[in-house]
Order: sequence, then C-alpha cells, then structure tokens
Amino acid sequence: MAVERKTAACLAVGSELIGDRRLDSNSLTITRTLARYGLQVEEKRVVGDSVELVATAIRELLARHDLVVVTGGLGPTADDVTRDGIAQAVGRPIAPDAEVEGWIRDRYAELGREMPEVCTVMARVVEGSRPLRNTRGSAPGVLFENQGRIVAAFPGVPWEMEEMLERDLVPEIAAWSGGVARLSRTLVLGGVVESDTEEKISFLYSRFGRENVTILASYGVLRLVLSAEGDEAAAGRRLDTMESAFREVLGDDVAGVEVEGLSPVVLDRLRHRRQTLATAESCTGGLISSWLTDVAGASDVYLGGIVSYSNQAKETLLGVPRDLLLAHGAVSEEVARAMAAGARDRFSADWAIGITGIAGPTGGTPEKPVGLVHWAVAGPNGVEVRHRVFPGNRSIVREWSANAALDLLRRSLGESSS
Amino acid sequence: MAVERKTAACLAVGSELIGDRRLDSNSLTITRTLARYGLQVEEKRVVGDSVELVATAIRELLARHDLVVVTGGLGPTADDVTRDGIAQAVGRPIAPDAEVEGWIRDRYAELGREMPEVCTVMARVVEGSRPLRNTRGSAPGVLFENQGRIVAAFPGVPWEMEEMLERDLVPEIAAWSGGVARLSRTLVLGGVVESDTEEKISFLYSRFGRENVTILASYGVLRLVLSAEGDEAAAGRRLDTMESAFREVLGDDVAGVEVEGLSPVVLDRLRHRRQTLATAESCTGGLISSWLTDVAGASDVYLGGIVSYSNQAKETLLGVPRDLLLAHGAVSEEVARAMAAGARDRFSADWAIGITGIAGPTGGTPEKPVGLVHWAVAGPNGVEVRHRVFPGNRSIVREWSANAALDLLRRSLGESSS
Repeated sequence: MAVERKTAACLAVGSELIGDRRLDSNSLTITRTLARYGLQVEEKRVVGDSVELVATAIRELLARHDLVVVTGGLGPTADDVTRDGIAQAVGRPIAPDAEVEGWIRDRYAELGREMPEVCTVMARVVEGSRPLRNTRGSAPGVLFENQGRIVAAFPGVPWEMEEMLERDLVPEIAAWSGGVARLSRTLVLGGVVESDTEEKISFLYSRFGRENVTILASYGVLRLVLSAEGDEAAAGRRLDTMESAFREVLGDDVAGVEVEGLSPVVLDRLRHRRQTLATAESCTGGLISSWLTDVAGASDVYLGGIVSYSNQAKETLLGVPRDLLLAHGAVSEEVARAMAAGARDRFSADWAIGITGIAGPTGGTPEKPVGLVHWAVAGPNGVEVRHRVFPGNRSIVREWSANAALDLLRRSLGESSS
Repeated sequence: MAVERKTAACLAVGSELIGDRRLDSNSLTITRTLARYGLQVEEKRVVGDSVELVATAIRELLARHDLVVVTGGLGPTADDVTRDGIAQAVGRPIAPDAEVEGWIRDRYAELGREMPEVCTVMARVVEGSRPLRNTRGSAPGVLFENQGRIVAAFPGVPWEMEEMLERDLVPEIAAWSGGVARLSRTLVLGGVVESDTEEKISFLYSRFGRENVTILASYGVLRLVLSAEGDEAAAGRRLDTMESAFREVLGDDVAGVEVEGLSPVVLDRLRHRRQTLATAESCTGGLISSWLTDVAGASDVYLGGIVSYSNQAKETLLGVPRDLLLAHGAVSEEVARAMAAGARDRFSADWAIGITGIAGPTGGTPEKPVGLVHWAVAGPNGVEVRHRVFPGNRSIVREWSANAALDLLRRSLGESSS
C-alpha cells in the first residue's frame, strides 16, 4: 500500500498528427502496455515537427511524470526532430555513432539495398542515452534515464514501435508497479443493440462499480470492457467473477473474449468442427473475405469467395438463376439464398455466406431503400436468411451488414469451447 | 505580410480519452475549422478528470497560444472538472448563474423531463466568462477572453461541440487571420519508396520552404502534402506552382491529387477508358476488392473478383492449370499470371489483377520467405508481372502488396485527365 503510484505521459511528434486527418493511435498501445505494470498514463500530447516544441513538451512532462514515451520524428528527413528535441530537453549533446550507423546499413543490406546517405542522421545518439535497435525498420529508438525518470522514444510506425516498447522499455519499468495492476478484459458481443444490452446489464453496475464497466459500440459489434484493480492474481480473479456474471445475463450474445472481432470467432468454431467456409459477396464487395483472411491461419477453414458485383457474375460464377434475378431483383431474399447456396456448391464448402444489398449512396428506391441488405447462411441443414435496412453511409452499411452476416453464421455454428 | 500568425491548441478532458480504447477526434474538426481562418493548431493535449491537470494544461497552453479550445468535462457529474479547471487557470471565482440554470431547465422541459438536481453544477459560471447556450444537449459551454487571448470550452459530444464552435467561436476569430489562409494540397504517390522520393525532391525544399512539404508514408502509398500561405487566391496560385514543380520531378509516380488512395484513381482511369476490371486474390484475400467497392460507383467498371484461398479454387474457378500449381507452387510468377488471365476470362473484363503470396506469419521457406508476393496485371496487350519480399507483419504485407498490384494496374492504364 505504501508504494507511490508512478505516472506516465505520451508525446506524439509529427505535423501530420496536428493536421485534420490523422490521430495518434500509438498512445492506445502504449497505455495498454503500461497498465499491465500498474503505470497510468495521465497526459497525452501531440506537437508538430519543431525541436523547440518537442523539447518544451518533454521538459514539462518529465517535471511531473516518471516516464515520457515519445513516438515519431525519428526518421531521416529534415522534419524528424525528436532526437534533437530530446537532446535539448535533457541538456546533452548529440553525436554520430558508428555502431548505430552499422545497424542501419545492415537493415538496408537485408532488404538488398544501399543505405541512402540521408539516413546517417538517424545514427546520431544523445549523450548518455541508449540507442534502441530497430529490426523492423531503419530508424533506431532512444532510451534516456536520469534520476529514476525515463524518456523513451520510438518510431511512429506501430509495428516498429511495438517491438521496442516490449523489448526495451518493459524490462525497465516492470518492477515499478510494486504489484498493483489494473487489468481489463473485453467481451465482444455480436448481433445486439447498445441500449438493449445496457438495460440488461445495468443492475450489475452497483455490484462491480460503474467505473469498471465500459461499453464501446461500433457497427454490428459491441465491446464490453471490464476492469479490476489489485495485485495481479486478485485482479484476475475479480475479472473471472465479473465475466461469469455478465455472461450469465448475456448468454449467446457474447461472441468471444479478447478477440478482434467476429471473424476469428467464426474461424475458431469452424476449425473446432473441422468444417469449411466460402463466401459470396455483393454489397460488401470482399469486406467479409478480407476480414476473414486478415486472421492468420484462415486458410485452414476458409476456402475462398466470389465478389459478384455484376448480375452476370452472379449467374455464371455462382449459378444464381437468371429467372430469380429478373423476378426478385439482385437485392432480394431469394438471391441472397441462391448466392449462399451457389458459393457452398462451387467451393464444396460446409458453410457459405451470401450477401446482397444497396450500400449507397445511390441505387435506392422506395421499395428497396439505400441500406437494405439481405444476408444468408447456407449450411449442412439448409439456408437461413435475414434482412435489415441499416442507417448510415456506404462504409457503415458495409461494415454493419458484414458483421450481421458473420454473426448469423456464428449463431448457426453454436457454442464452441472458447 | 505584417500580420503576426496566431496559434491555437486543443485540450481534451476525460479519463476515457487517456485509456487504451478511445481517441479524441474532436480535435480534427476543430483543426479543420480553425484552418479556414488561418489559425494553426500547434499542440494537442489530453488529460484526465482532474481540476489540477486541467488548470495546469490551460495555463501552459495560454502562455504560448492565442486560443485554447477545450472539449469535454462540462457535464453534471463529479468527474466533470473543466469549469473549475478554467476558473483556477485564469484565477477567477466561479458562481451559480440563474439565467444559465434557466437554459438547462428549458432544455430538460423540451425533452419532457424534470431537470435532475445534480445539473445545477452546470449553471456555475466563471467570473468574466460568457456562458454558451447548448441547444443540442444540456451542458453549457464557456468562452473566456482576456488580453486578446481566448479559452473556449465545449461539450465532448461532437454534435453539441460543433454547434458552439461555429456559432460562438468562429465569429470571435474570423477577423484574426487578416485574410491570411494556409491552404494545403495532397499529391498521392504509388509504387515508390520514401527515401527515394525524399532524395528526388529535396532540392525543391529551399525553393518552397521545408515547412511547406510533408511526406506521409503508409504501406505502398506515399502522400506529399504541400502547403502555402497568403490570401486565398495567392495561396492557391502558390500551390499550383508547387504542384507543377513536384510533378515535373516525380512524373508518373504521382497517382492523383486529393484522392483517398489508389483505388479511386484506378477506377477513374478505367471509367475514362470505358473499360472493366476483375480481380483474383490469394494472399490479399479480398482486400483489393473491398477497397475498390468502398468507392461509390465502383460497379460501373468493377465486375467482381474471386478470392482463391485454396488450390482447388484456383483450378476450378480461375482455370489455373494443375500442372502449373504442381510445377511452380501456388506462390509463383506463373500462377500470378494464370490467376490474372483466368479472372479476365471468367468475368469477361478488359483488365484483371492476379495476386499470390505468403502473408505469414507461417508458411515461409528459405526459397519462398514470408512476405514474398507475386502480382500480375492482365490487359488487352498481355500480362505484366512483378514480385517483391515485403517486410512487416501479415496486415502490412497484405496492404503493401494490394497497393503494389493497384499501382501496376494504374501505370498500365497510363495517364488519365486527372
């Protein structure tokens, strides 16, 4: 109890991050990682590519936090100012380092290229700091410790940042927590509406604390984030209790725990049943197949799909009868059924999804408005079909309907061990 | 020319925004709005729900910026600390205001509800500030001006924030620019490497100012953001001059101007030529087709695609000869060619993309490592094929190779009018 809680801050450097296009999302990964070690991020900042602004921010943040994690601004161009900003903030000189230049040359050699001369600026090292090797890119990181406070700087590229965060920073801070962790666990729900779920679970708030339950809604997927604090074992047990209590109320609405979305859940259940899947997509145009194949190992169970944007493709590649298309139109329950059945047949799959709709912004009619989507799941016991008019723009309609189709498949597959 | 450039900062208040899930996106709207009046956001911050942290942040930001826009923390609960933070930062008392309480009661009455007693805290006003009425919610905003510097605080709900931003803040700052606008224009480049482009264009920095050129790299697409300042017409002419100078150096590397990515460019060029496209994807698993169909109106030229994750699908749906698969393996130049040719044939399209590779994390061999991708474009004059070993994880390999394939198609299609 006597351990004083240490705090951290994130600083993202880059003019593009103070423009009107991009947000700094690295801070989310950093916050999550630091929380594992009981370290709370209390402040986040973004500044443009100016040595002065970077140096001022680091100085102010170091004055009130134990750890400052900087991302971005470590590349080879003139607007990469983080190295110099750190040097100025901590009042140390910066000088070329032959070993670090060697790392960069090696990295280029691995890719079969000569290091451009401009890259030598990345081999300048702040005196007293530890340069961090980048095996996923060329820009080295920086770790500077002074009087128990740390400034760590990583490249802005998430894949490169993550390597250094885990390999170089975590060992430095792992002992800081004194055993107090704040853990969280995310239940992913499919096929539900936020306000309904809110009503179902609200009686549990008083039991577990309102601040320990957060609902995050996106289009067709709801995330319920449960949190608990204490030493790691106690917080873990608390989360187990919370998970059971929420699952009891939510039943099959819970698709999975700590999963990225519905596609890994569906792939797992198929793998568990040793069955295969194919897709036939019209309005979602490959979105479902791209989500499925974004999961490593999808090829075990996902055989492939057909994006049938034209009626001709629906006929020739999926065997949807022309009569059906003429009688009911491409966006209809009948065509969704025939697409699913066609994909199941063409790929010789156990299961198949068929989806057809009007994503907009044009193409709607009074009978078939923009947002109308029919989706079907064909399986060993026949075809199930659903429809809905989704609100929102083209992207939202596509995302929502892709999730709806995956959720129908998930429920058709039933519970697995997960 | 004599107008001194004013600067602004954004501060978002809320513990949920320093967690590991949510980002402050209000700052994007604010940045865009202020830019219309020549005001540059130089710094963004996020702090948790603490009066001290909010007051410190406002004090520091007011010391170096003319305008500080705060969002969030104006609600009725104990963790809504923005009003008190402002009072502390500017050293003024805060007191209940009967008129403001009337606004809040009226708002509740409109919704047919009684105002909860807790809401009276929202009617406390910082001495010398102007309370801002909220017609889209209940929490009033704050506008405090002192010695030409402004702190404006709006609710975190975007729909409520936007009303006050336009109605209450814009009139205050509209005259600040003195007619000086900062405009920007984004050139999108495909099929290039950041350091090569940097070397090609660096001689232009001195001519146009280093701070007016920003390179944003993602996997397979590079964005070159050009900026110019002055009255609106002069800044526009300056951007025209800059664009010409950069285009002269970069030639066909420039895919388009102010476009979202390569897919709209490719669709435009096809539309211009009245030609059609189909795709055959293995490692990208539908990513290319989902990008293409995310563009409204894609159905004019994009006929559809086949995601052939299994060898059987490559044979039966794309007509890739089994001998070819056995002799060269699914990831080979020969199979990429046959996939492109097969898709072109099956969809009766003018053009088709074929792509096959090893996205990882497993499946690599010494001869065919993870990241190896072959892509082909089949068109009226034959088939072009390329390959590369892309670095990075599964998502990155997929994104990079999808962009590489779209770029090969773009270059095969030649310049359009854009």
